[in-house]
Amino acid sequence: VSATNTAIREENPNWWADANSVSLDELGLAARNHGMPLEGLAYDVTPLGMHYLLTHFDVSEISEDTWSLEIGGHVEHPQRLTLEEISSRPRSTQVVTMECAGNGRARIAGRMKSQPWLEEAVGTASWTGTALWGLLESAGVKDGAVEVLFTGFDRGIQGGVEHDYERSIPVAEARRSEVILAYEINGRPLPPQHGFPLRVVVPDWYGMTNVKWLRSITVLKEPFRGFQQVTGYTIRTSPESPGIEVTKMQPRSLMIPPGIPEFVSRVRYATRSAQQLRGRAWSGLAPIARVEVSVDGGRTWDDAILGPPAGPHAWTPWSYSWEPREPGEYQLQSRATDAAGNGQPFLPVDADNPQGLANNGIHSVRVIVR
Amino acid sequence: VSATNTAIREENPNWWADANSVSLDELGLAARNHGMPLEGLAYDVTPLGMHYLLTHFDVSEISEDTWSLEIGGHVEHPQRLTLEEISSRPRSTQVVTMECAGNGRARIAGRMKSQPWLEEAVGTASWTGTALWGLLESAGVKDGAVEVLFTGFDRGIQGGVEHDYERSIPVAEARRSEVILAYEINGRPLPPQHGFPLRVVVPDWYGMTNVKWLRSITVLKEPFRGFQQVTGYTIRTSPESPGIEVTKMQPRSLMIPPGIPEFVSRVRYATRSAQQLRGRAWSGLAPIARVEVSVDGGRTWDDAILGPPAGPHAWTPWSYSWEPREPGEYQLQSRATDAAGNGQPFLPVDADNPQGLANNGIHSVRVIVR
Repeated sequence: VSATNTAIREENPNWWADANSVSLDELGLAARNHGMPLEGLAYDVTPLGMHYLLTHFDVSEISEDTWSLEIGGHVEHPQRLTLEEISSRPRSTQVVTMECAGNGRARIAGRMKSQPWLEEAVGTASWTGTALWGLLESAGVKDGAVEVLFTGFDRGIQGGVEHDYERSIPVAEARRSEVILAYEINGRPLPPQHGFPLRVVVPDWYGMTNVKWLRSITVLKEPFRGFQQVTGYTIRTSPESPGIEVTKMQPRSLMIPPGIPEFVSRVRYATRSAQQLRGRAWSGLAPIARVEVSVDGGRTWDDAILGPPAGPHAWTPWSYSWEPREPGEYQLQSRATDAAGNGQPFLPVDADNPQGLANNGIHSVRVIVR
Repeated sequence: VSATNTAIREENPNWWADANSVSLDELGLAARNHGMPLEGLAYDVTPLGMHYLLTHFDVSEISEDTWSLEIGGHVEHPQRLTLEEISSRPRSTQVVTMECAGNGRARIAGRMKSQPWLEEAVGTASWTGTALWGLLESAGVKDGAVEVLFTGFDRGIQGGVEHDYERSIPVAEARRSEVILAYEINGRPLPPQHGFPLRVVVPDWYGMTNVKWLRSITVLKEPFRGFQQVTGYTIRTSPESPGIEVTKMQPRSLMIPPGIPEFVSRVRYATRSAQQLRGRAWSGLAPIARVEVSVDGGRTWDDAILGPPAGPHAWTPWSYSWEPREPGEYQLQSRATDAAGNGQPFLPVDADNPQGLANNGIHSVRVIVR
């Protein structure tokens, strides 16, 4: 535990989790939210209901009849739009891999209490909506705009601060044609838990960016300083520094666990026969360039074969032939490298990241070969 | 801890969970499986993706092209049917509330390790398929049949025993017209995690009965004695007795937590104003006759107003007007009684039920009124 962690810990002692177990309040989050069972890596587009889901506060209960979206702030023509008006605009479909910024957090001994993800907080969906920038252009973005703020209907208390869930992106990101306001997932209207009637989808960014249950969009002249931007999703590297805001997804690779599971431990049991290991890898920073597999706990690595991703912002499938010849215990691992040279570390997180944000430690699967 | 528990515990010490925390392997189950966020109580039929989901082993990956269902055992005409043949039979839609038999388990100090549900392991779906008995009649059930066994494609190890997931129901239950082989949920084909391409749905019974990813249906002359029937879902009341098999759902009522949540603790914050408490109650034993609400931690109880259930096997909505006048902490509770007189106990489970099966303790919501 670093000096920073110690300082933050002393500030708020009851925000910290136990090192080797999970508390009942962390379990309360795990029971509500859910990861994607790794069998879901079999699909280009994750079936509805298997995609990971994190709800900070409550799933909002919104009637389409009374809902409308407010567009305001630093624009020429503030406006209010119905869902019908939004869905009559040009349609855009984006296949997007989305991962929670806290994926892997539960493996960190010195973590702060939050949703205790192991490694399953990911999924890929086909989102349909309309381009954000087209809508903002209609409203007339004024000179001097720096960010676009998304405010949801979900409200609660976190870190002692009561607030609506809201986050911003820079104007340069908002201009990307693939950033959409989505009203459909996998070809059907958003279900309540994915943000009905409208959410923003910002490909390549971690999940917290994709604000659900949109109430308003506000063009800002100054950077947004709200809780979910500068406290909730910021890595504090020293008590004095403002910290590093979490943005795009670091590379990660996951594997469909081979063989059959033991119910409680999820340890896998496989046979001495040729089998195909399969998984998916993604990065929000650049296309996936390489996936390597180790079947000896990381001592040696071998290249996996990559398949085509389902889209420029979707994960890349990989496969690897494995034929264990000796009975015994194997630690299978995979690691991804993207075209910009970003890789995956062995350690899940450094000591100065107690929220476990944007950590991308290597996934390990324990297999007993019989 | 009773003598029975002590005996079972000494047999298999590593099957037991810690009293006041959750282990990483229990968390591994909680991250894969998920309850229904209690906001889901707002809907007659739970939106797809919010319904609780427990997968014992893996989500099976099945292609409709190669799949078929085998019907055999004690029948005149063993047969093999394609999905097309099954879905061309008479259609039946059933709105069914389904709850995991282990709901509430995580609140039990002396529990065995398993999926650590708090109270959210429930959901209601509209299932469409064809009546089981019609199909069995076509196969010609022979005299002397006592049970019908359902075998899934999911295979794994539990309690040290490797097995396919399979469970049986008595022939008298199989004859009920509302017991169906379902290929649709909420009007669309089953997604993989709900048992694609076909599962059995037995209204009123706990969730483990509703075998997913069906491979075969076998009519039996002797009761089935497999792991999931006589070990996994049996309450052992003494080391000598065979125990009590878990069957139909005990009554339970849950409440949509009012106000807004604190992110980690899920403690609720509400205002001193009139508000409508809402929830749902169900029982597999008889219709819901009464729901009572306490706003003082169970000291006094008041009748809630019941609404019409969405079907004879679906939960009953209730509502209750509450206007807290003093700031402070409130414990809100609800309890259901069914028409057969079955109620809910205060304690989640007795000491002789270490798996926490069919326990139906009263749900309590902590609310801070400001």
